[in-house]
Amino acid sequence: MKYSDKSLLDRYIPITDWSKDYQFSYFKKDLRAGLTVGILLIPQSMAYAMLAGLPPVYGLYASIVPLLIYAIFGTSRQLGVGPVAIVSILVATGVGNIVETGSTRYIQLVLALTLLVGITQFLMGVFRLGFLMNFISKPVLSGFTSAAAFIIGFSQAGNLFGLDLVRSKYIYSVIADLISHLAHIHWPTFIIGASTIVFILVLKKWNPSIPAQLIAVIVSIFLVWAFQLDQIGVETVGSVEKGYPAPVLPNLSEFPFWELLPTVLAIAFLSYTQSIALAKAMVRRNPDYKVDSNQELFSIGLSNMVGSVFHAFPVAGSFSRTAVNDQNKAQTSISLLISALLVLLTVLLLTPLIYYLPQTVLAAIIITAVPSLVEVGEAKFLWKIRKREFILMMITFLATLALGILEGIGIGVLISLGIVIHRSSYPNIVMLGRLPDTEHYRDLERHPEGLTQTNTIIVRIDASLYFANIPYMKEKLEQLEIESGKNLEQVIIDAIGINKVDSSALHALKELTEEYNNRDIDVIFAGVKGPVRDLFKRSGLENIIGPEQFYLNINRAVDSLKDEEEEPSHLVEDQE
Amino acid sequence: MKYSDKSLLDRYIPITDWSKDYQFSYFKKDLRAGLTVGILLIPQSMAYAMLAGLPPVYGLYASIVPLLIYAIFGTSRQLGVGPVAIVSILVATGVGNIVETGSTRYIQLVLALTLLVGITQFLMGVFRLGFLMNFISKPVLSGFTSAAAFIIGFSQAGNLFGLDLVRSKYIYSVIADLISHLAHIHWPTFIIGASTIVFILVLKKWNPSIPAQLIAVIVSIFLVWAFQLDQIGVETVGSVEKGYPAPVLPNLSEFPFWELLPTVLAIAFLSYTQSIALAKAMVRRNPDYKVDSNQELFSIGLSNMVGSVFHAFPVAGSFSRTAVNDQNKAQTSISLLISALLVLLTVLLLTPLIYYLPQTVLAAIIITAVPSLVEVGEAKFLWKIRKREFILMMITFLATLALGILEGIGIGVLISLGIVIHRSSYPNIVMLGRLPDTEHYRDLERHPEGLTQTNTIIVRIDASLYFANIPYMKEKLEQLEIESGKNLEQVIIDAIGINKVDSSALHALKELTEEYNNRDIDVIFAGVKGPVRDLFKRSGLENIIGPEQFYLNINRAVDSLKDEEEEPSHLVEDQE
Repeated sequence: MKYSDKSLLDRYIPITDWSKDYQFSYFKKDLRAGLTVGILLIPQSMAYAMLAGLPPVYGLYASIVPLLIYAIFGTSRQLGVGPVAIVSILVATGVGNIVETGSTRYIQLVLALTLLVGITQFLMGVFRLGFLMNFISKPVLSGFTSAAAFIIGFSQAGNLFGLDLVRSKYIYSVIADLISHLAHIHWPTFIIGASTIVFILVLKKWNPSIPAQLIAVIVSIFLVWAFQLDQIGVETVGSVEKGYPAPVLPNLSEFPFWELLPTVLAIAFLSYTQSIALAKAMVRRNPDYKVDSNQELFSIGLSNMVGSVFHAFPVAGSFSRTAVNDQNKAQTSISLLISALLVLLTVLLLTPLIYYLPQTVLAAIIITAVPSLVEVGEAKFLWKIRKREFILMMITFLATLALGILEGIGIGVLISLGIVIHRSSYPNIVMLGRLPDTEHYRDLERHPEGLTQTNTIIVRIDASLYFANIPYMKEKLEQLEIESGKNLEQVIIDAIGINKVDSSALHALKELTEEYNNRDIDVIFAGVKGPVRDLFKRSGLENIIGPEQFYLNINRAVDSLKDEEEEPSHLVEDQE
Repeated sequence: MKYSDKSLLDRYIPITDWSKDYQFSYFKKDLRAGLTVGILLIPQSMAYAMLAGLPPVYGLYASIVPLLIYAIFGTSRQLGVGPVAIVSILVATGVGNIVETGSTRYIQLVLALTLLVGITQFLMGVFRLGFLMNFISKPVLSGFTSAAAFIIGFSQAGNLFGLDLVRSKYIYSVIADLISHLAHIHWPTFIIGASTIVFILVLKKWNPSIPAQLIAVIVSIFLVWAFQLDQIGVETVGSVEKGYPAPVLPNLSEFPFWELLPTVLAIAFLSYTQSIALAKAMVRRNPDYKVDSNQELFSIGLSNMVGSVFHAFPVAGSFSRTAVNDQNKAQTSISLLISALLVLLTVLLLTPLIYYLPQTVLAAIIITAVPSLVEVGEAKFLWKIRKREFILMMITFLATLALGILEGIGIGVLISLGIVIHRSSYPNIVMLGRLPDTEHYRDLERHPEGLTQTNTIIVRIDASLYFANIPYMKEKLEQLEIESGKNLEQVIIDAIGINKVDSSALHALKELTEEYNNRDIDVIFAGVKGPVRDLFKRSGLENIIGPEQFYLNINRAVDSLKDEEEEPSHLVEDQE
């Protein structure tokens, strides 16, 4: 179905569309999926809140309103929205650079950051700028994610071992500090944490449908409470505000905008790309609906914006919860509403219990998520088929580990931009010859049997011309002239592939024509498209070229040549 | 002649190439051009040094060694290298943000900055990254330059009126301050400055070959000396170090690298783009040699690097002096050496006279250069033929005026990058039909008479596939399927235009094929090029598609179809 066939309401608020066909049989599946995801979400969200440097209860806050908003506005019906690891570590790194982690001011800044992330995504959706999100190369992103996984893992070393380690963006500082503190490991803490890791990993292998993380949370709360382990130094989450705090609009007036701009952009970008990738993967498995990239940007943005008022930190689609949601056959985002309801009940009724939850258990939950983020498979794939992209992945991976997570993504962006600019700078431009016994002109490099004219080269430009590829076009024309080995009297430019020209291209074509004319070489255009021809006319370029030098196609242009004879091509080898 | 035909020495040190054919008749022209440019260079360079916030004598220093180096390594034979206005104002803005203008520390920072600008350009030349300089759109650059011209002009208001005005990057602060000080104008200063402006402009109109600027400098020095105008408050250049100071390697150890990085990059970029644009314009007028973009980056970089050791601030090709050099028929960069020699003699013998040079005269020289930088012609051209690019130019123009010169160029870069990414994201993808009575398959939108198959669409992709254009490719295929109005059983992809694929493209094609196969649609490839096919094979994509689904060209692919009949196309109109 096409979006344009839908009413605006159905398009921008998808719930109004799919709810019309909602059936009771869907609800049974949605209920089951929603409860299963909710059971996973409660421990995960608290763990990721801790990763983000926030009190764990904020993870629960981030798992209610954003899910509700996404259920209404999102186009994916299986996406498990909520706190995710990479976004959480970015929050901790960005805001932790500015104020002390966990302080009241820290929490205020995180909520304001969430609002700005949401506004950024929302506006990009409104202005249909989703295409800007395409420009990070996949290997760069894989390298970044894999390195971030290590940083996430090591960020929890202190909680796992019961040590007070340095907070540093450099993973080696954390490791060094850990080694120097090895003698002071708090063994009860470490034993609880380590056994949680083992428990989760074993259960995941043995029977993934058992909610290992929730069991670990419940058991550990019980153990701490029963044996008063908090009295012997096992750090727990501690006292939690009762009930759901009243909504507050985050205060942007004292927000250090320029300092946190890279963090806002990085989170806006990563939270969206991860969500849209998952949403598209879900559509491939459930091809009965469509995902719209701009609507997703818009709905994730709205989830973060509205969420921030309700004390949520930035959310995205989660790999693990989306997979569980889909395995349990969620039919619509009603399942998200059910998960949110479960979390809301927890906040309203069970927060007193969270007091006893040991931090080491949350650390264990985070650490067990690390392996799935390290993209070894992608690295092997690239190593096998594209060494260059493998190197790109490794550069980003090592840069992120060595310099820090924000710097790593900065370098990834720069490398990707370099690739895009490089690609854009080199359009395909080929010299043509006539295939014997046909009327077709084809690339001489691929068809060396093509026939050429005595003093003429025919060149096809396969791209719209604009400022980024103009310099190369001029160089390439010179190079083709040399390769042709001809004493040039005419250049025929096949412009059939040029859909657009900008002002730089018009200037450049003017200069080019003048240069050729100075050398007594005629410039002839074939197959110039209507809109392009119109710009040639209005800019005065047509008069410089000469209105009689335009032909409908190459054949007619060649027929117009005088004193020319066909000859086999004998290209001069390029020495470079 | 091709570069590859030249020896490495001739290529990288062009002077060794052209000096072989040097003739006495050239020397006469070079001498005349060199002296004329030198006479222009002496006052201009001092004025631009003042614009850069440096003692005027530094302009002379910047007009000796950099010219010498460029003469040896540069490929242009007419380029008038030396201090230029835009680069000078960038120096003042960037370094002036950090330390007080004109202080010893300021001078040290400027020299270190020059070294870094040179290193940046040199390395970009070595790594052949010149293409990165293409990515600023011409209208954006025109808007920036025009706004910078106003900023340059107003920066001299204080010197012209003999007032001590605020140094601000905001032009309106300067104007407001000027208005509030109007009552305190130092009239003798203003009269000298204003009459210099009138004198230069009138002489330029009447007879451009008279060195108005030098005359103004000499006359004003004489007047100040004779009537002791410095005693009544006419600010002069003041005492100048005698002779040429000993070379010193700039100290980079305390350089505020991150703070000045945008300035370094902006200057490296602008000094190069201005130089290469002029060098190319000169080659169009003197087509007996070639300009090599990377060698230019390398030689301008070397001029700045070595220059910084000899107390030079960043240089570039100057519009006015290049034009004068060419009008005087400079044959080789021997003319540059002669200009440099003239400046050297001035430094060694005439610096005591500079003591009496009034700053208002230098301000007048700067102000008379402003009109040539305001690109009214380009604005009119864009207004006439491309409103969109006109708007781009205006946005950059206004942003630069409103936010400052570095911010303006930052915004220009962002807009240009947005355009490049946008262009890269939308490759040309069209649906094909067979032209009746031929074997040719052509774009159905341009040839609606084309014949199609009952349940098959044929799609041609006209670009190499990589991460930036992959998302659009998938959307476009969906859209074409809807437009075709067919109940799809096969998709034929004409891959003749795909020269390269990256790993993202391989992943995407794999997903695409799986999606089609899930819907019982066969994916057939025609005309896949060798290297692309090889990657299909090694990545496992070929097996997913099915090795039997590859055909040499569309005709063979169509011949292989079963139960298909030809029919006229009846495209469904796109509602959007």
